[in-house]
Amino acid sequence: MRVLGIDPGLTRCGVGVVEGAIGKPLTLLGADAVRTSPDTELPQRLVGIERGIEEWLDRFQPDAVAVERVFAQHNLSTVMGTAQASGIALVCAARRGLPVALHTPSEAKAAITGSGRADKAQVGTMVARILGLDGPPRPADAADAVALAICHIWRGGAQARVAQAAQDFARKVELARRTRGR
Amino acid sequence: MRVLGIDPGLTRCGVGVVEGAIGKPLTLLGADAVRTSPDTELPQRLVGIERGIEEWLDRFQPDAVAVERVFAQHNLSTVMGTAQASGIALVCAARRGLPVALHTPSEAKAAITGSGRADKAQVGTMVARILGLDGPPRPADAADAVALAICHIWRGGAQARVAQAAQDFARKVELARRTRGR
Repeated sequence: MRVLGIDPGLTRCGVGVVEGAIGKPLTLLGADAVRTSPDTELPQRLVGIERGIEEWLDRFQPDAVAVERVFAQHNLSTVMGTAQASGIALVCAARRGLPVALHTPSEAKAAITGSGRADKAQVGTMVARILGLDGPPRPADAADAVALAICHIWRGGAQARVAQAAQDFARKVELARRTRGR
Repeated sequence: MRVLGIDPGLTRCGVGVVEGAIGKPLTLLGADAVRTSPDTELPQRLVGIERGIEEWLDRFQPDAVAVERVFAQHNLSTVMGTAQASGIALVCAARRGLPVALHTPSEAKAAITGSGRADKAQVGTMVARILGLDGPPRPADAADAVALAICHIWRGGAQARVAQAAQDFARKVELARRTRGR
């Protein structure tokens, strides 16, 4: 499974592509930030972010996209731009019919370090360790995007296993019902 | 000048097209709301809004787009969706190279009623009067979008007049300088 993680932002929108599956080694295919200048008008900045994300989708053809969930209560000064950038990310993915999931920062941190309150350095260290890198991806926004992609693969795997277990159980119940019915 | 006004929202995104110029009668060409269902997933809702706005741009080919400026401090529960919808609106316009402006709700109210604190009913009444309608456009989000379009024509007109006056003044100064130079 190949996942594009996106950490939305106007000045630096983190992007990172991770390939792998739960229980298997994960590989980092690419990580960077799509940048737009604060001197540019907002509509043009959003178009720049859309173009940047489209390029990453074209280049890596991911199977799914994971976007960080933005909360209104944080960073009031930048939250509107972040929300707008996240809207662009969601549209870029959904327009292509790609499954797209939102994960909170604490979900990503918990998936990667075991604690939803881990600090940036801890997340960076674990991201590097998980992917077999010498250090965390740079810039920090790229590392956050990579963490989201890893979180998506692992959580998606867990969710899929739960769904599979439920399906197996239902099949057994149905089988037992039929056996009794004979 | 033909302006598409957009009042961003996830459930009802108001759209309204007004044609005219400052000092001349204004005509309403169309007003409605692009709707998406709260039962639909967020990424698909945003794609629905993008498609809806694209249809209005295709159909009416406006010269400019006016979008309501969203503030983080209002309506925390819905502000993220509103911000994301506004991001989509800005991208749809900027992608086509259309001039796009953001106006605050108070700017729109002040342009139309003379008071930035006018209530919805007062704005609706004045919108209907300005456009020669029997009543305000429905739903309320459409009326807000129409108010934005009117605001844009009138404010744009005022801004253009200021720019023209400045240009005229500079030309006279230059002419005086040359005349003295002879």
